[in-house]
Amino acid sequence: MLTLNNAIDLLQDFAGKHAFPLAPKALYEPCSYILSLGGKRLRPALALMAAELVAGDGAGPQALHIGWAVELFHNFSLIHDDIMDAAPLRRGKPTVHTKWNLTTGILSGDVMLIFAYQHLAALENQSAIPAVLKVFNRVAKGVCEGQQMDVNFETQELVSIEEYIEMIELKTAVLLGGALEMGALSVGANAKDAAYLYDFGRLAGIAFQIQDDLLDTYGDPATFGKQVGGDIIQNKKTLLVLKTLEVASADDVLRLKQLLSFENTLEQEEKVKAVRTIFDHNNIPTLIEAEKKKYEDLAFDALSKVNAPDERKAILKGMIGALLHRSK
Amino acid sequence: MLTLNNAIDLLQDFAGKHAFPLAPKALYEPCSYILSLGGKRLRPALALMAAELVAGDGAGPQALHIGWAVELFHNFSLIHDDIMDAAPLRRGKPTVHTKWNLTTGILSGDVMLIFAYQHLAALENQSAIPAVLKVFNRVAKGVCEGQQMDVNFETQELVSIEEYIEMIELKTAVLLGGALEMGALSVGANAKDAAYLYDFGRLAGIAFQIQDDLLDTYGDPATFGKQVGGDIIQNKKTLLVLKTLEVASADDVLRLKQLLSFENTLEQEEKVKAVRTIFDHNNIPTLIEAEKKKYEDLAFDALSKVNAPDERKAILKGMIGALLHRSK
Repeated sequence: MLTLNNAIDLLQDFAGKHAFPLAPKALYEPCSYILSLGGKRLRPALALMAAELVAGDGAGPQALHIGWAVELFHNFSLIHDDIMDAAPLRRGKPTVHTKWNLTTGILSGDVMLIFAYQHLAALENQSAIPAVLKVFNRVAKGVCEGQQMDVNFETQELVSIEEYIEMIELKTAVLLGGALEMGALSVGANAKDAAYLYDFGRLAGIAFQIQDDLLDTYGDPATFGKQVGGDIIQNKKTLLVLKTLEVASADDVLRLKQLLSFENTLEQEEKVKAVRTIFDHNNIPTLIEAEKKKYEDLAFDALSKVNAPDERKAILKGMIGALLHRSK
Repeated sequence: MLTLNNAIDLLQDFAGKHAFPLAPKALYEPCSYILSLGGKRLRPALALMAAELVAGDGAGPQALHIGWAVELFHNFSLIHDDIMDAAPLRRGKPTVHTKWNLTTGILSGDVMLIFAYQHLAALENQSAIPAVLKVFNRVAKGVCEGQQMDVNFETQELVSIEEYIEMIELKTAVLLGGALEMGALSVGANAKDAAYLYDFGRLAGIAFQIQDDLLDTYGDPATFGKQVGGDIIQNKKTLLVLKTLEVASADDVLRLKQLLSFENTLEQEEKVKAVRTIFDHNNIPTLIEAEKKKYEDLAFDALSKVNAPDERKAILKGMIGALLHRSK
């Protein structure tokens, strides 16, 4: 069975053969640019691995169009989200609307989404297209709804933990699930196994996102890749904050709210330290780890129900497990 | 066979049964809003009529999902184009990004495009989905490329008539062709007939756009619906301008370029009058009418090649002919 690295190699080769057209340059150059910024290619790799899980060695390459559709969708959403977030940088490089302009960001994103659908239409196994298209649409709609929830949260006074989990589920986790589900469907998996794989990816995706929230505050600056404490600096309502609001004393809650508002007068570094002290005092890292573990366990439960050889499932489980336990 | 009005009634009913979800409100309310602003629903009606043309009475309703997908795509492109054009009004009402904000304009447009694809996936005749999806993608990609060309033209010194025709073909005409082609494919038409219908719509669409350019300057203010002379006021490089640059004397060309530049000192009304005088002096209305007639004839040629009863083709021809010869 394909390993993650095998899958990534296949995807690299595939991407080279399916580059964007050269003209109109203003439309397609930004599409190539965002793809060139890197990214782990984990989502498309999952599509290939799901295909091999259910249909055996050699089935992975049949899911390349699925994988690449998922990767293009992901990058389309990055281009548009960066406009909505007014983000100047993406992976340390200028975002598309910053390097070019707003029109380019909108239009290049749009055409990238259409190219994702072109890859679905190009599936070797044409009979799988109707089912795959339905999953893709369901997931894509979910991602838009998740982004809308995220936008709403910025101005929403009270955000419940349930709402937050729903937001990260829609905004990021369903696409991981969709990659697995569509990868399996593209090689003829039955709907039941494909649905278990969807749940596996969706639940693991929630666990990943919870881990991201944790690492943003408690990660190792040397390996995290982003500024540790960034969420705190931006006053984000992360799961750590929401959990604190739920479990902490009235005093701690008041102090946290002050720190994460315009009332705060501390410098960035001091502010991060002060918020972290409140988190620590309320045992937040342990509580959040438990929340993550809950979704991780549910994810592996779903995987165990897929009708596929255990040794193949073990490869997928090992890979996801490793990603969910990278050192802080 | 369905008339245009029959088709529009069916679409109205279908739209009522396929309204956007209520939540998240900030995401879907703008989608319902733009649809509520009206529009002729000509594109989706063409899908239904194409289905009846090739598959007989009663086939039209089978193409409702196709028609509505085309209508949603069209409205998605309006929302995003209005952002790119910084347009405050659409059909006399505030544009989505004006009534709400930029984020809403981008995200509601995105989800509307995804809903278009959901209608493709909902086709009753599931075996038609792969072929229909390919056409939809090809057309959607063309529309993005046409929009990019239109954006480029704003800053491009020289625009040839060939480039201009290619731009209007991609930006607006291919979607009319696609509506007909997909409507036919959805009820099992063969690829050849579907392709002739595509050409019919595409060529008629070019003729429509040429007519639009003419009416913008020579239309009857009482019936045109937009401000007559709007293109001149906005210094747009329409087909009338490009034709003048091709056929007029050096003096007229120089004067026209001055009028359509920052050098112009005339008030709007005087400017429109002065430009129109140059057009008239160079026989531009007649030349442009001839150009329109060329595409109209080519369109009806393509229609004549479709394997379908002549009396049915006559209905479609009569309807398009009437739209192409509405009084000035």
